[in-house]
Amino acid sequence: MKKAVVRFLPEDVTAEAPLGTLLLDVALEAGVFLPASCGGAGSCGRCKVKVTEGSVEALALEKLRAEDRAAGFVLACQSRLTGDVSVEIPRVRGVRKVLPRDEAERMRLTARPMESPIIPQIDPLAFTVLVSTPPPVVLDNVSDLERLVRTLRKDHHIAPVTAGLEIVRELPTVLRQDDWKITACLRTEDVPDSSARLHRICRILPGHLTAPPTAVAVDIGTTSLWGELVNLDTGAVLARASRYNPQISMGDDVISRIVYSLKKDGLAKLQEHVTDGLNQIVAEILEKSGQPREAINFMVAAGNTVMTHLFLGLYPKFLRESPYVPAAQNVDPIPARDLGVDIPSQSPVMVFPGVASYVGGDIVSGVLANGMWTSDEMTLFIDIGTNGEIVTGNRELMMTASCSAGPAFEGGGLEYGMRAAPGAIEGILLDPETYEPMIRTIDSQPAIGICGSGIINIISQMLKIGLLDQNGKFAPDLTTPRIREGRSGHEYVICWARESGLSEDIVLTEVDLDNIMRAKAAMFSGYTCLLDKVGLGVDDLDRVIIAGAFGSFINLDHAITIGLLPDIPPEKFLFIGNSSLKGARLASVDRSLLRKSRHIARSMTNVELSEDPSYMDNFMAALFFPHTRAELFPSVRLGTVKSSS
Amino acid sequence: MKKAVVRFLPEDVTAEAPLGTLLLDVALEAGVFLPASCGGAGSCGRCKVKVTEGSVEALALEKLRAEDRAAGFVLACQSRLTGDVSVEIPRVRGVRKVLPRDEAERMRLTARPMESPIIPQIDPLAFTVLVSTPPPVVLDNVSDLERLVRTLRKDHHIAPVTAGLEIVRELPTVLRQDDWKITACLRTEDVPDSSARLHRICRILPGHLTAPPTAVAVDIGTTSLWGELVNLDTGAVLARASRYNPQISMGDDVISRIVYSLKKDGLAKLQEHVTDGLNQIVAEILEKSGQPREAINFMVAAGNTVMTHLFLGLYPKFLRESPYVPAAQNVDPIPARDLGVDIPSQSPVMVFPGVASYVGGDIVSGVLANGMWTSDEMTLFIDIGTNGEIVTGNRELMMTASCSAGPAFEGGGLEYGMRAAPGAIEGILLDPETYEPMIRTIDSQPAIGICGSGIINIISQMLKIGLLDQNGKFAPDLTTPRIREGRSGHEYVICWARESGLSEDIVLTEVDLDNIMRAKAAMFSGYTCLLDKVGLGVDDLDRVIIAGAFGSFINLDHAITIGLLPDIPPEKFLFIGNSSLKGARLASVDRSLLRKSRHIARSMTNVELSEDPSYMDNFMAALFFPHTRAELFPSVRLGTVKSSS
Repeated sequence: MKKAVVRFLPEDVTAEAPLGTLLLDVALEAGVFLPASCGGAGSCGRCKVKVTEGSVEALALEKLRAEDRAAGFVLACQSRLTGDVSVEIPRVRGVRKVLPRDEAERMRLTARPMESPIIPQIDPLAFTVLVSTPPPVVLDNVSDLERLVRTLRKDHHIAPVTAGLEIVRELPTVLRQDDWKITACLRTEDVPDSSARLHRICRILPGHLTAPPTAVAVDIGTTSLWGELVNLDTGAVLARASRYNPQISMGDDVISRIVYSLKKDGLAKLQEHVTDGLNQIVAEILEKSGQPREAINFMVAAGNTVMTHLFLGLYPKFLRESPYVPAAQNVDPIPARDLGVDIPSQSPVMVFPGVASYVGGDIVSGVLANGMWTSDEMTLFIDIGTNGEIVTGNRELMMTASCSAGPAFEGGGLEYGMRAAPGAIEGILLDPETYEPMIRTIDSQPAIGICGSGIINIISQMLKIGLLDQNGKFAPDLTTPRIREGRSGHEYVICWARESGLSEDIVLTEVDLDNIMRAKAAMFSGYTCLLDKVGLGVDDLDRVIIAGAFGSFINLDHAITIGLLPDIPPEKFLFIGNSSLKGARLASVDRSLLRKSRHIARSMTNVELSEDPSYMDNFMAALFFPHTRAELFPSVRLGTVKSSS
Repeated sequence: MKKAVVRFLPEDVTAEAPLGTLLLDVALEAGVFLPASCGGAGSCGRCKVKVTEGSVEALALEKLRAEDRAAGFVLACQSRLTGDVSVEIPRVRGVRKVLPRDEAERMRLTARPMESPIIPQIDPLAFTVLVSTPPPVVLDNVSDLERLVRTLRKDHHIAPVTAGLEIVRELPTVLRQDDWKITACLRTEDVPDSSARLHRICRILPGHLTAPPTAVAVDIGTTSLWGELVNLDTGAVLARASRYNPQISMGDDVISRIVYSLKKDGLAKLQEHVTDGLNQIVAEILEKSGQPREAINFMVAAGNTVMTHLFLGLYPKFLRESPYVPAAQNVDPIPARDLGVDIPSQSPVMVFPGVASYVGGDIVSGVLANGMWTSDEMTLFIDIGTNGEIVTGNRELMMTASCSAGPAFEGGGLEYGMRAAPGAIEGILLDPETYEPMIRTIDSQPAIGICGSGIINIISQMLKIGLLDQNGKFAPDLTTPRIREGRSGHEYVICWARESGLSEDIVLTEVDLDNIMRAKAAMFSGYTCLLDKVGLGVDDLDRVIIAGAFGSFINLDHAITIGLLPDIPPEKFLFIGNSSLKGARLASVDRSLLRKSRHIARSMTNVELSEDPSYMDNFMAALFFPHTRAELFPSVRLGTVKSSS
């Protein structure tokens, strides 16, 4: 990718970025403060800079006053790099607007993006066969089903084959509709404890379908649902979509969902809501990819144990009562119709096997995708979702636990929290003198909330510039309108109503901070406790693989500063993104991987942290930014909390 | 069984019969005519006889005039043998009232009753296990399903085990309802082309069920439904019931049912009707046996191909169009719920495999039961049901065909025809001079119709006494009020309205006779045609096994006289009754027999008679009583048709 050099004056900070990058993003990453407050939407007009050398591709110049335009000003959020350029930032007040170089560099530290090391074979869970049977005659008038089975054996070498009643009901009409040509979708069933296998016809269509066979891989998160349409001929992802889990209206976390499920019709409503959400995702990925619904051969779903229970309509009451027993860890494939999933009614839905009540199929799918089960490296795998699951070990041993982090890192339970979707504030640079924020939203949409990585980002900076103390309280008596008394304690205004996509100010409250503190304490105490069980410390780890819905990257400096991640060398961190979804996609393409995942699930030893007294001690000690034991975070340097008093 | 000798005076005919037999039945069987016209109900009072020596246990004496009682008269239909006795029959008019001894003996010739030679092992298609799992603790908190599966493996040596979603949905509650004790019903699935097997949990109940596990075996006939409740611990039949197939309102035979099924909602209505009928049978056998519904582990159903299609909701259109292709010959077990069958919703329903569109699971079940597939004897198996199927051969080769006999032998399509149920006229003796009938009904109920064996019986006698010619027309100009001009040609009054259980005369019409003629011609030409295919004549047969709903026996003399059965030595005939039901019962007790039945179905070669020109020639030649080729029935002696002209 061709890059250009940007020189910011008068501080003379230089930065490099690919052609096409927005000037605003170059400044944000270089630690150069611009008073951008609309998130990059081009509406506030406050990120103007003057091009003094070279040029940029600038839009929305009409937002500028005529004299500014004439003087060579452009909006940083509307200008893309076309080559080397120098820009001058107007002085608003006489304060420094640039971070020290080392601090700016530190803030750019991200976990290395990781792709799954698992290379799938193209051998999907269900496959499509284009069949042409000879038409019957009096001397060969075996039944339609036997004729189809015979042709599959003779012409396609597929045997033994069986079919359920629904297929037999459709078969006579379907076979004759297009002159004895049909498209059959078959699922291979392995017989447990045996090398025998059976092929089950799960769908038939008249004629020969020309569209490629597809599968839907989904991740059913407590907060978010993700789905991908996968081409089963190539393994390629044809489209992707995500949205909130509509069950959120029935509770933020798994415990409140279980409570809701025990009300009259509660379980049925929860099941209906998540199915509705999945169906919207299916509709969206079909629309985006232009593929027909009838080509969907199956769905693979990975979700935590509670989400899986609610999706399947399994009674979840005993998941939350000691000794925490799921209804099932492994469930056979289920016809879509029985779940209300809007893929062809007989297409099977497969769910990933779980380990325990709070370590579910999403973690098994994540472990499948991150490959730690095949690796010698001592790994810590952290999935920062609503539930907060952790796995440590390698191919020889894997221990796992969950720590009820809650949905804060997905924006849940926060006044203006939201998931990483368009309009979410993700990039933030705080002016260390004025405490004014420079904000960047996802897709440059007007700000409507703040997502998990934005939250980590802003708290870390508040700690560094002394706006926040280590207990998560705002510095008292600061003379900035951004900090004020709100409905629930002090709050910081990230975005004024007039500059936002909402009709109200977007704020971060001390209650929000408390939620984040508890969430990161749960995660930190979870993995330290689990490592302790296997006699390891964080320094013994070869690598830390982070999963979670953090957009495209996770900022290590910020995450370590707030005490969410352990303070170990940044090169040990890898970010795999939504590993649950990745695992579901892998398993849909290569059926041997779903079998492996059952093996993975069985090989993981679950530790019930809630039954472990040391966990609670660890948790209490972690209720501080970054931690009450400062020696655990030697690299973290926080600012002095300021006070005008 | 202790027997008594009865001496009928003044003709001095003696007969022997078990103690407890009704005098009327002794007379009927001995060919001694009594003017009994109410069928044995005790209402007409016309079967009075005078006890001259010995005594009987006589009821309903109040129906007699006081002077008759005083003179020692009793009602033959209300008097049971208690020892040797002599009775005198009053002379009504001066005619002989007794058949010649050889004729009476001939009329007593019945096919030997045959039990199935197949001895089942007690290894049912689904079995019950009383399970007690250890309760979960934190250090052993595998899921409920895994716990159950583990206990089945460890304590009961059953593995591998799987369960569908419905079971998993119920499991958490059921396991905890009675302190981790449950009753599980499992079905063993054999994997085709493999020695592997899989056990599927098909039902769970809280606690340990004390009632014996049962199965429902049913025969789904075009005209009649039969069902038995079978104790799966012992193989014993606990109760039996039968009734009309409620689909009769939608057509008498399979063709008219198929036609109906093609109407809007026709198939669904037919499915619903037969299920309703089966559900009534299930209710009746549970009521009779006092067994609980929840102990029913499965249902095994045998029916012809059309009945099976309609029961399963399979599209039957192509069954009746050349080349006569069924939707499927073999269908996997189906949860009762999917068919609306009122046994526990997840209990499986298994249907017998069929051979072809008109040789179905009832015949395969019948062959399974009659054992010809294990025998060296050259056998002709005739199932005289609505459809009329025939199988010939032995363990080495079996050929089969069907011949659309129609429902006449089950009473269908006849003005006053009915199935062999209480009130059906079954025994008949015609006075050769007056043409008055002596009738006997099933269960001594007032006559409401005539059943198949009654029909064969009366036609044969009419032919013998010259009341009917060989074309099936009544002798002209007879001076008896019993023969009269009816709505559709001449008719014979079998029972006057005043003596019947109806408000109208029970008659046999020439249209009825034509129906019977066509039905027996179809059967006869069917098996002669089929034997011809294998190069055999009827004389080459070692035995003829007759199945059908003929009450407890089939009278050979009558059946040969009308040309229904071949004229071969009577000792070659065996009567097995409802062999389809017998096969279903055998398969329910011993699952290897259902597997064998699939082998039997595959090994039977079907001949499509409707595509064979010689069949139609044979049929036309058989439209005569007994046949146009008299040499085929050398033993049949018919009377001269009388005429007063």
